[in-house]
Amino acid sequence: MLSKNKIKFIQSLNRKKTREKEGVFLVEGNKLVLEAVASHFRVRLLIGTPGFLKSNPLPPDVADEVIECSPEEIKKASLQQAPQQAIAVVEIPYYQLSMNQLTREFSLALDFVQDPGNLGTIIRIADWFGIRNLICSTNTADCFNPKVIQSSMGAIFRVQIHYLDLEKLMDEANQAQLPVYGTFLEGENIYSSNLTAHGILVLGNEGNGISPAIETKIQRKIHIPSFAVGARGSESLNVASAASICCSEFKRRS
Amino acid sequence: MLSKNKIKFIQSLNRKKTREKEGVFLVEGNKLVLEAVASHFRVRLLIGTPGFLKSNPLPPDVADEVIECSPEEIKKASLQQAPQQAIAVVEIPYYQLSMNQLTREFSLALDFVQDPGNLGTIIRIADWFGIRNLICSTNTADCFNPKVIQSSMGAIFRVQIHYLDLEKLMDEANQAQLPVYGTFLEGENIYSSNLTAHGILVLGNEGNGISPAIETKIQRKIHIPSFAVGARGSESLNVASAASICCSEFKRRS
Repeated sequence: MLSKNKIKFIQSLNRKKTREKEGVFLVEGNKLVLEAVASHFRVRLLIGTPGFLKSNPLPPDVADEVIECSPEEIKKASLQQAPQQAIAVVEIPYYQLSMNQLTREFSLALDFVQDPGNLGTIIRIADWFGIRNLICSTNTADCFNPKVIQSSMGAIFRVQIHYLDLEKLMDEANQAQLPVYGTFLEGENIYSSNLTAHGILVLGNEGNGISPAIETKIQRKIHIPSFAVGARGSESLNVASAASICCSEFKRRS
Repeated sequence: MLSKNKIKFIQSLNRKKTREKEGVFLVEGNKLVLEAVASHFRVRLLIGTPGFLKSNPLPPDVADEVIECSPEEIKKASLQQAPQQAIAVVEIPYYQLSMNQLTREFSLALDFVQDPGNLGTIIRIADWFGIRNLICSTNTADCFNPKVIQSSMGAIFRVQIHYLDLEKLMDEANQAQLPVYGTFLEGENIYSSNLTAHGILVLGNEGNGISPAIETKIQRKIHIPSFAVGARGSESLNVASAASICCSEFKRRS
């Protein structure tokens, strides 16, 4: 049985303010909830239909609270258009990030990526390419937005996401002599560039690209050349498409 | 002045049935409308605010009908959450497709791609990589869906999109000895594969991948290897991410 208060609380997690205040986010759908349970994240509340709980035997300490309820109740609480059989309220993790760690890896940074779908897709790409850290400017979409969670397809439980002052981080990376790359409409052709195995690649805003303040901190401007025939072609690639291609190029050579 | 009938008609173009019956689709937003006007597509109706029409001087034969109206009227007609200053009703084009042409090019084929955002992004990717023909199974999302038009960012005016019996086309390609590739979770590693400059690459459904009927027609099964560390990682890439990486790999080597 799901109380009115619980339903109200779950729906309030659509708002960033509430998520931050409560320190939790919402995970919906059978597969994603099972990923949450299997992850190192702390599950505060697990809600499932009798069918879900029966077909997925879970240890007693799987969550601080487990509630069995009807599909109708799940429907009432859900933010999804087509709710499934399970919902979880999960604690927002806090990760440490050290320049020492970054200098030994290839990482992605996002400068004001606004669209939740793009962010979710980029988290999934990062996970696929074994990228441990995704660094976001504070004005990038919130990774605990339900739309991001859904489109990340569980990668949110594996990639460590950090929101911080990107300019300051770029300064620190420059000081540590860690190469900082950025994607631009002009620059070195990525296919013929010499790409290092360690570094940070910055991707910019959907409409405006990388901001001027961040651009000044980037030593290696790279671009993905267009193969369009004739004068007219798309002006740019979607930021998640650019992320896919860049990660593929960096990783296949490393 | 926009009549009630016109507003009703514009909004009815949200439905595939109406688009097919009327042979037109909807283009919204200043930039996209200007792309429509500059394309070879026939614009049946152009609606713009006085500001839009003044700052974008257009030839008198730009559309069968031009209507100047207030931003409030545009808002009433628009399907967008944040309407801009222009809307166009554009004729659906009919393209010829010949196996003779396909054998000299690299093309993409989609087997039941359902999400309009994914389809729009793939059209944009095709345009970027100079891919002229995008072949869709008849159960793939409709490319004239307003969501596809918006996410294609104008690429819809340049890439020729064909809906047809994909199995039959695969048979014809096999007969013509045109290599048919498909992305799978297992197969040749794309980074070490010998990829031809001409061929058709099939991408599958978001949840289920390429259908068994199409799989039997594919000679070259390729996959994008994951670089995830440890046992757990994302099970798959988003179909538009896979399209980005594959097009990048095929084109950079061709």
